Order: sequence, then C-alpha cells, then structure tokens
Amino acid sequence: MSTIVFDEKKPLDFVAIGRLCIDLNANEINRPMEDTVTFTKYVGGSPANICIGMARLGLAAGFIGKVADDQMGRFIVRYLERNGIDTAGVVTDRTGAVTGLAFTEIKSPADCSILMYRDNVADLKLHAAEVREDVIASAKLLLVSGTALAQSPSREAVFQALDYARRHGAVIAFDLDYRPYTWTSKEETAVYYNLAAEKCDIIFGTREEFDLMERFESNPDRSDEATASKWFDYKARIVVIKHGKEGSIAYAKDGASHRARSFPANVVKTFGAGDSYAAGFLYGLMRQWPIARSMEFGSAAAAIVVSSHSCSDAMPTAEQVSRYIDECNETNRS
Amino acid sequence: MSTIVFDEKKPLDFVAIGRLCIDLNANEINRPMEDTVTFTKYVGGSPANICIGMARLGLAAGFIGKVADDQMGRFIVRYLERNGIDTAGVVTDRTGAVTGLAFTEIKSPADCSILMYRDNVADLKLHAAEVREDVIASAKLLLVSGTALAQSPSREAVFQALDYARRHGAVIAFDLDYRPYTWTSKEETAVYYNLAAEKCDIIFGTREEFDLMERFESNPDRSDEATASKWFDYKARIVVIKHGKEGSIAYAKDGASHRARSFPANVVKTFGAGDSYAAGFLYGLMRQWPIARSMEFGSAAAAIVVSSHSCSDAMPTAEQVSRYIDECNETNRS
Amino acid sequence: MSTIVFDEKKPLDFVAIGRLCIDLNANEINRPMEDTVTFTKYVGGSPANICIGMARLGLAAGFIGKVADDQMGRFIVRYLERNGIDTAGVVTDRTGAVTGLAFTEIKSPADCSILMYRDNVADLKLHAAEVREDVIASAKLLLVSGTALAQSPSREAVFQALDYARRHGAVIAFDLDYRPYTWTSKEETAVYYNLAAEKCDIIFGTREEFDLMERFESNPDRSDEATASKWFDYKARIVVIKHGKEGSIAYAKDGASHRARSFPANVVKTFGAGDSYAAGFLYGLMRQWPIARSMEFGSAAAAIVVSSHSCSDAMPTAEQVSRYIDECNETNRS
Amino acid sequence: MSTIVFDEKKPLDFVAIGRLCIDLNANEINRPMEDTVTFTKYVGGSPANICIGMARLGLAAGFIGKVADDQMGRFIVRYLERNGIDTAGVVTDRTGAVTGLAFTEIKSPADCSILMYRDNVADLKLHAAEVREDVIASAKLLLVSGTALAQSPSREAVFQALDYARRHGAVIAFDLDYRPYTWTSKEETAVYYNLAAEKCDIIFGTREEFDLMERFESNPDRSDEATASKWFDYKARIVVIKHGKEGSIAYAKDGASHRARSFPANVVKTFGAGDSYAAGFLYGLMRQWPIARSMEFGSAAAAIVVSSHSCSDAMPTAEQVSRYIDECNETNRS
Repeated sequence: MSTIVFDEKKPLDFVAIGRLCIDLNANEINRPMEDTVTFTKYVGGSPANICIGMARLGLAAGFIGKVADDQMGRFIVRYLERNGIDTAGVVTDRTGAVTGLAFTEIKSPADCSILMYRDNVADLKLHAAEVREDVIASAKLLLVSGTALAQSPSREAVFQALDYARRHGAVIAFDLDYRPYTWTSKEETAVYYNLAAEKCDIIFGTREEFDLMERFESNPDRSDEATASKWFDYKARIVVIKHGKEGSIAYAKDGASHRARSFPANVVKTFGAGDSYAAGFLYGLMRQWPIARSMEFGSAAAAIVVSSHSCSDAMPTAEQVSRYIDECNETNRS
Repeated sequence: MSTIVFDEKKPLDFVAIGRLCIDLNANEINRPMEDTVTFTKYVGGSPANICIGMARLGLAAGFIGKVADDQMGRFIVRYLERNGIDTAGVVTDRTGAVTGLAFTEIKSPADCSILMYRDNVADLKLHAAEVREDVIASAKLLLVSGTALAQSPSREAVFQALDYARRHGAVIAFDLDYRPYTWTSKEETAVYYNLAAEKCDIIFGTREEFDLMERFESNPDRSDEATASKWFDYKARIVVIKHGKEGSIAYAKDGASHRARSFPANVVKTFGAGDSYAAGFLYGLMRQWPIARSMEFGSAAAAIVVSSHSCSDAMPTAEQVSRYIDECNETNRS
Repeated sequence: MSTIVFDEKKPLDFVAIGRLCIDLNANEINRPMEDTVTFTKYVGGSPANICIGMARLGLAAGFIGKVADDQMGRFIVRYLERNGIDTAGVVTDRTGAVTGLAFTEIKSPADCSILMYRDNVADLKLHAAEVREDVIASAKLLLVSGTALAQSPSREAVFQALDYARRHGAVIAFDLDYRPYTWTSKEETAVYYNLAAEKCDIIFGTREEFDLMERFESNPDRSDEATASKWFDYKARIVVIKHGKEGSIAYAKDGASHRARSFPANVVKTFGAGDSYAAGFLYGLMRQWPIARSMEFGSAAAAIVVSSHSCSDAMPTAEQVSRYIDECNETNRS
Repeated sequence: MSTIVFDEKKPLDFVAIGRLCIDLNANEINRPMEDTVTFTKYVGGSPANICIGMARLGLAAGFIGKVADDQMGRFIVRYLERNGIDTAGVVTDRTGAVTGLAFTEIKSPADCSILMYRDNVADLKLHAAEVREDVIASAKLLLVSGTALAQSPSREAVFQALDYARRHGAVIAFDLDYRPYTWTSKEETAVYYNLAAEKCDIIFGTREEFDLMERFESNPDRSDEATASKWFDYKARIVVIKHGKEGSIAYAKDGASHRARSFPANVVKTFGAGDSYAAGFLYGLMRQWPIARSMEFGSAAAAIVVSSHSCSDAMPTAEQVSRYIDECNETNRS
C-alpha cells in the first residue's frame, strides 16, 4: 500500500504557503450583486481556508504568507491566531500593498461568482528570503497553493519553500487552485505548475487544471491515468483529479485508484467545497487512513461547508464531520 | 459685485468629471475596522457625491467618467440614474479595471479614516477622446475634481474637458480634493494642479492643498490673500480656502472676502462634509445668491451629511437645507 | 512690427531644456544599416543640436537636462562644455538610466532613417524639482523641445520651466519636435503640446505636427492661417509652419507672413536641417533682424549642416553662414 | 569513466538558447570610452558567441532565440546564417523590442568594462510557445545561458526548452553567465539558477556564480567539491568551476577532478574568454575526448580570442586551435 509516512517527530502537523485574503460575502443572497447592499467580512483564500480547516480538525497548523500593513491584514492575522494557527511565518508588507478581496455573488446555489481585487496584493509580495526555513523544518506536511505561483516574488518564495521541504523531509501537497487573473498567459502557468508539481508528493486539481498543465504535451483523450502516471515518474505518490459533479478520482503510485462518494448537502453556494475537501482528505492521510476513507471524510467536510454562508468560518471539527457521515449513513440505511 | 454669470440657455446646470467609486461603510461604528464585520455599499468619490448633492438640490446634473465592467460599475450607473443624473458621459472600461473602493473606519466622530483601493481603477482610465464635448457644451457649470489629475489617461481627459469648457463658455469650478495615493510626488501634484487652476473660475481647497500648489513659490506666511490674489491674475473669480475647524474663507476678485458660519451637528463622521458644502455653495452661486448666503447654505448641507452614516445617500434636498437653517436660527434666537 | 524684445540685462542669451543623447552615425553611407560596420559617436538630440548651434553662432548658451551616470553621459557634458555651453543646469541621473541613442541609416541623401533607443533614458528622468530657476531667470530666451513632454517626470520639468520663464520674463520658443516613440497616444501628445504652446512666444513645427495638435479641433482645410491665429489668441507672437520641400511660412501676430527661401546644398543626409534652421532663425530674432532675414539665415545654416556627416558637430559659425549666403548670392547673380 | 554519450542519430550537434545581441567595440583602445569616437559592430551575447564558436569548430549548430524587427536583428540573423548556423529557431519580435547592445571599453588589457543596453530587449521576449520542440529534438546537445532566465517570458522559454531536451534525450549544458542587470534580486537569481541546474548534465560557472546559487544554503568554506557534489545528487555529470586567473577545475561524477592549464596569449581584452573556452571544451566532450584534453582545447581557444578585437568574429577553427596548441608545446619544449 502506498501510505504516505509523515515524520512524527516534527511538532507542526501542517503548514500552508500562499494566499491570505478577505472574502466579502453578500448578505442578501439569491440575487445579482447589483442588488446587494451589505457584506460580511471573512478570512479567505484557498490555502487559508484549508489551513483553518486543518486547525478545526484538531491538527497543529501554521501559515507562511504576507499580509498588508492595514486593518484587513491585522484582522487576518488575528483570526488565524484565534483559530490556534501558528503565524510565525506570516510577515507584514511594508510597500503599501493591499489585501486581496473576493466579493461573492450568489445568484442561486448553482450560479455563484466572485469579483476579485488582486492588484498590488500583499500575498504575492512574499520574498524567498522571507520564507522561514525553521517553520518548514518543523512541519510534517507543506501545502502549496498554485495561486502563489502567479507572480514574482511570491513565485520564488514557493520554489524556495519547496526546496526547504525537500531538505527537511516534509511531505508536500500541491493544490493547483488555478485562477486566471494575475497570470500573464496559460503557457506561463503550465511552465511553473509543472516545475512545482515535479517536486510534490500529493497533487490535487480539476481535470481542466491538469489539461492546462499538459498544454505543451500530448494527452488527446484527456486521460486521468496518463496524467497521474506522468507525475508518478517524478515524486508524486497520490494524484487527485476532480471532475466537478461527477466526483473525483485519486490515483496512488501503487496502481490503485479510488472514486469519492459524495454527500447530500443543503447547498447555499459552491465556494469552499474544494478547500474543505482538501482539509478533510489530508487529515485522513495524516491519520494513516486508507485513501478511500480519507476521500469520504473530505467529501463530508465539503458538504458541511457548502451548506453555510462562509468558507473559512464554516470549517467543521473532526467530530462534526464524523457525526455528519454517521447521520448520512443512517439516513441511507433507513 | 463679482457674481458669476451662467449661460441660462444651456439645458444642463452642472456636470462633474472624475472619480466614481464605492464606499463600504462599516455598520459597526466607534471601533477600529479590525472589529467591524459588516459593511454597507454606497456610491462614493468626491465629484460623485457633489453631483448627487446637486441633483438632490434640484439641479439638472450630469457626469463624465468611467466605470468598471462589473457589478460595482453597473451599481454606480444605476444609482446615478435613479438620482436623475445624466450618464451619457459615463463610459465603461474594457481593460479589466476595477472599481475604486473606500472602506471607512469610524473610531469616533473625530477619528475617522479610510482604507483605499486605488490600483488599476476604472475612473483613472478615462481617455481624452472619451470626453463628450457635447455634454460639456450643454452645461452651465463644469466641476473638476483634483484626484482625476492623478494619473494618465484621466489627467489628459481633465485637460481636454477644461478646453471644451473654455470653448463653450462653461463656468469651471475646481475642487482640489488632494489624495496622496496614486500621485507619484508632491512636485507632480503641484505642477498639474497649477496648470488646471489657471483655467478655472472657482477654486476650492484646504490651506494644506494650496500650500502644496505653492511648492515652487514663495508664500512664507501661508497668506490666504496672497494665494487668492495669484489666481485672480489668471481666470479665477472666487477662491475658497478651508481651515478645518476654523471655518473657511472665500475671496472674490472684487476684493471682498467672506467667512462661513458653521452649523451645529450631531456628528457621526466627518466624511462628506466638503462635498456637501461644495454642492450647497455652488447651488447658491447658480441661484445668483451672494457669496455669504451661498456659504451658509453649503455649511448647513454639510451639517446634515456629517450627522448620517453615508455621504452620497445622505445628500439633502434644498428644502431640507432651508428647513435646517431655519431651525438653527430659531434655536439660536430662543 | 512685431519684433520680440529680449531682456538685455540678462547674462545668458539662450537656454534649452530637453533631450541630450548620442548619435551613432554610420560611417559607410548610401547603404542599409545591415551593411554598415562602423559608427561615429556625436552628441545629439534636437535641443542639444540647437543649443550647440547657438553657441557656435556666438551666443551665451546653457542647457537644462539630465544625463546618464556613465561614459556616454560624461562625453555629452564634456562636449557641451568644450563648446562653451553652461552646464550648471545639467544633472546626472542616479537611477541607472541610460543615454538615448540614435543610430542613423543613410540609404541615400533622400532616404534616411533613425533607429532609436529610448527605453529608460536619462533625459526623460529630469524632475521638476531639478530645474534650476536661477538658470532660467538668467536667460533671455528659453527653448522647449516637444520630446521632453513625452513622459513623466520630464513632462513636469518642462511645465515648471515654462512657469519659471513666465515669472522671470524670458521669451519662450517651442520646437514641437514630435517623435512617436515614448508617447502613449496621439491624444496624449495633443493635450500636452497644446498646454505648453499656450505659454509660448514662438512656436515652430511641421504642418503634420500642428495637425496632431488640432486633433480635438476643427481645421478641415489644414489652414496655416487658422493654426497661427489660434495661438495668437494665447501668447504667441511668431508661428512658423514647415512644409518640407515646399519651404516654411512664418506668421507674426501683426498679421504679416513670410516665406523662407531655401539654399542649394550638396545633401549628404536630411538630419539636423530643422535644428540648424531653428538656431539660425532664433539667432536672427535675437539680433533684432526682421523675420525674413532671420529665416534666410536659418535656411543657410540648414544647408550647411545637411552637407556634412554630423548634426551637432557640423553647426556653423555666424561667419560661415554669412559667407555661405554671400556665395550663394554671387552664384545667383553670375 | 564518466564520458557523456551523445545521441549520434541526431542531425544537429548543438543548439543554444538565449541572448543574441550586438557588441559595439571601441576602435580606439587603451583609453576610457569618453575618449573613443568610433565603434565596430559585431554579433554578441554569450550563447551566440559559443554557438558561433561551435560552428567555426566544424559542428552542425543551431540557435533558439528572438531578435528585434530592425536592422540590428536582421544583421544578427544574417551573420549566424553566414556562419552556417541553423536559424529555424530564431523568431522575430513584433512588439517593438530593441536589440541588446554592449559597448565595450578597453582601458587596458586588464581593465575592460561593458556599457550595456538591456531595457526592452528582444532576446528576453522569447515565449515558451515559440520554442521549437522539433529543433531541440534534432539536437545532441542543448546549451542554456543563465541570462535568458533573467526575465519573463524568456525565463519560461528556457524551462520549456529544458523539458523538451529531457523528453528527447538531449544532453544539457548550463553556462551560468550571470549578469546583474535585468535581475530583480540575488534571491531571484538563486531560485531560478537552482531550478535550471537540477536538470542539467554539465554546469559551467565562476566560483562567484556558484556562491550566488548557494545563497540559501550553507557552504561556508565555498568548497568546490561540496558545490559539485550537490549537483551530482541531481542530474549533473560534469561541473566546471572557474577561478579567474587561478584557472578552472572540472569535477566529474565518478569522483575525478581536473585542472585546466592556461595558454600564453597576447591579451587585447578579456571579453570572450569564457565563451571560447566553453565552445572548445564542449567540442572536446562531443568528440569523446577525456575531460583534461577538452579543457586544454578550450583554454587554447580562449587564448586565441582574447588576443583579438572581437569575440564572435575571432572564434577559431579546430585547425587553428590545434596548431596553437602545437606551437605552444614546441615553444615550451625549445
């Protein structure tokens, strides 16, 4: 079995590197943003959500990133700390950068969109020299978010973090999390995603994200197996490919593949589903659960988050997830 | 008397050029923004506020500007139109610019600040070729806001608008409205403020703003009279210099000067005071009132706006202002 | 007669502001640059050429500009000083800017072109605060070159120089010298050329350059008279419009117009013709010669420069120009 | 023995990717550039020089790069073609980029410097999508020059070329060729140099360049052996570390190390020494010579180039190098 072994001597279970931003969620939902009037502020950004998710699940989590020197930046750091997340690796920008914003629009549970503010954002100003090697050295698992590769100097910071993780034997998970803004071209994205993926143990992404990475290659049938197999030639041991409503499939280096079951949910919006799934799945792997059980745990966590108004703030505890799985199982049985 | 004559044959009383943005006002006030959770969305930007103020006072008003091609941009145009403002001169950006944002923080009525998002904003992308000569030709009064001079191509659009106004005999008012972000240096500001001010009939600003314009000159005593007199050598007929709590002073080309009285207010925040003052003052001038009465009307309008939560949305009608003046007078008398 | 009066008490006859660069003239001429192998280095840039021309004609000349902190920059300053030009107003860039380059290609006397290097050039980095008011205060005549308006901060430096010239009573000449590179758009050029031209006493340009300035106006017949007359409504007293081979025409505010005669030349290349013309013409005006005689002197100076390999280095002395006029007259008579 | 095997079925011996530029060498030498007047034009840029060197030595060589759409760009392509170099991989920029320039100053044989023009240069505008996979697939050996990593999109083009080389089994040589201009920071350089070096078979650089790459590591004694050994953990088989006048040392993966002997030369300037050395050394490896003999051949080629005025144009034929070695050996013997 291709279980991934984590170095139990390390004090920190998990550290994420990348985007820290603010979600401004419309309070009036099921209508276009032109008709909304008030917004509620949450901490956001995919790696931030996953990190908060991991902390809620009971793991010792930390973050490596950069925040603006303003009220939004201070709000973010405070929120992380209140969730028990180690912020020793979070530095404050001094160049006048701002905090990235995501205004969410929920026209219907199935029609959600985001209005992004990504110009001059602090999270993309993290320098390689600001990445704390000691923080990475102390962590069992490093999560890299693809958006952090979108611009210099954050791009270099990620590659430096990958190098530190290799040096110190941390397992590396790569959440592709492709967002077109801030990238110059799809070719640029493909080049850096591939350079990073070569160095990772666990890779998560949608079929479309893997297609993007195969821009200079030939995979005419968009075969998941061909995709996964390419990365097993490098360092990967698990490759998870998501197919939206059709669910996701996880390939392990030993040749096995696993499909996730999905859980019923009272969907408010789709945001945050991937982040809570990632948190739940990684949590399972760290507990040495089989892949299938880890995927189920991730799916249940996702079902809980899409049923509520926020992403970060709705991340469940391990007990909540387990209870939710039990409840669904009972419902099914009855 | 140096009354300013407006061309009564023109159908539009007033047109403003410059910033259109969104204010996000914290609903929880009297605390730092780190502790606020929800925000309410309003149309903002100094010239937008003045224009809305003029429309509320009953004048035929229009706007020349640029909005983002997104939900925020559409909200702004819709709000202007609902207030009866002509938006024929408002164009939509197609380059992916965003809407400027101003998050307000009200720690106390006397301690207010703004967190600005001004990177890649649509309002500064207005091109000279997009300024509608016909709209300016149809207007009695053009208001120019200094922030629109902060960057190209908006800077060129303003100079082109000034040229159209001169050609078609519109009276020109210049509200200095200096905001340090987006300007490269104080020298740059001084140069363009001076170039614009040379072409204006009415100039409003704080003592600090006029000091900035005199950066390359000698006015060691910071004399208001010297300042006003310089502009009377160009085209100016009224120069209003604001001294914060000490009130403001208006100089007329004929040599007269007038001090404004201030009105009692139940101050919630100080934002919007200058904009409502400008609207009230210009309204008075357009009704051919003496300068002193126009200033009083502006001060009363300002007192009303600082007593409420928003800027634009709180702009009073002429009747409300008159009633407020009457009430204050009665209170004084009693 | 609309003779322009210069303030004889001022010690400096002439000061130019703008571009200082390097010409690299192909030594092998009458062939494409792909076939040239060696280049000779000269000081170049239109205002530099005019300034060197004025110094050669015997006037006390100075320069306001910025050079790179490298061998090219030092070469330029040294060359100016060797020509007796006051370089107190020439500052050295400290930001790593380079010296603008112009590689000339002479395929035939009638087919000349220039390959320009204008990225990150020192001359466009002159700041308003670096313009020496005392140098302008000491000068009878300020020459502004349009290329210096192409970018910030040089653009602001020019407007500041114009303000100093007005304050101290210097006559201002504006050589439009439009070069498309470094400008963002023709609209941008039109706006700033017009703002500058409003403040000038003498304006030189080609018909095409004046067309560009009339981009937002109506002059359907491209009438020189309409063009000149517009500027007489501002401050201009002489407007010279050049029509290439058809010669140029000078309008004076008093209503008179004058056409220049052209001189026979053994043309090597066309570069430098306009600059030597400007130097000769302004020299005549400063000697209080009638416009027609000043134009003739400029034309003769131009004929001398186009007959040689360089621009700056070929600028003639007053004696050379006079002798050339005499020789041509004799030839004509015989 | 760790001889490197080249795929003999491939038609192209060698392909280089990176900088193509123009050297402008002062004709008047042994003086500062302020005192030079004429320049001679040559094709330049380190990988261009090496490629020309390889072609002169008799190998089938090609180039992957980008040139400006001007006379300089056309001169470069023509020169490469005249030297028998395949330019199928050389594309022409259409964005208005210029050709990089290097003005050389030779104050004395030991005191040489370069004045660089590297703003907006065509060579750094090569896109990943413009790299011809078929050209790399046809080549036995790919040479990557570090300067091509300095900026996007050229940086991505290099990584894409490295991926194509891996896919098609080309041997990869990496010439660090660090030039501080165009890089944002030393940290940025370290990150990308390391990412590229991991994928290379042969790495050349000075001790200072390897120090730069070890910025985030610990090699306090600056040990060449520690440096080489790090890269042998990746893909490297030969690491050459240059120590200026003290000569260079080559490490092979099998543990052997070799020091180069140097050849007497009548030094005109030091430029081009490294490039001719690289060409000679790689030529030897491709002929399956032992490392020591390849180094000697490189040293002799370098001695020939530093004795002449140009870099590219002075690259010797194999016969010239062999004859030079023989002559030196005879001199030594006598």
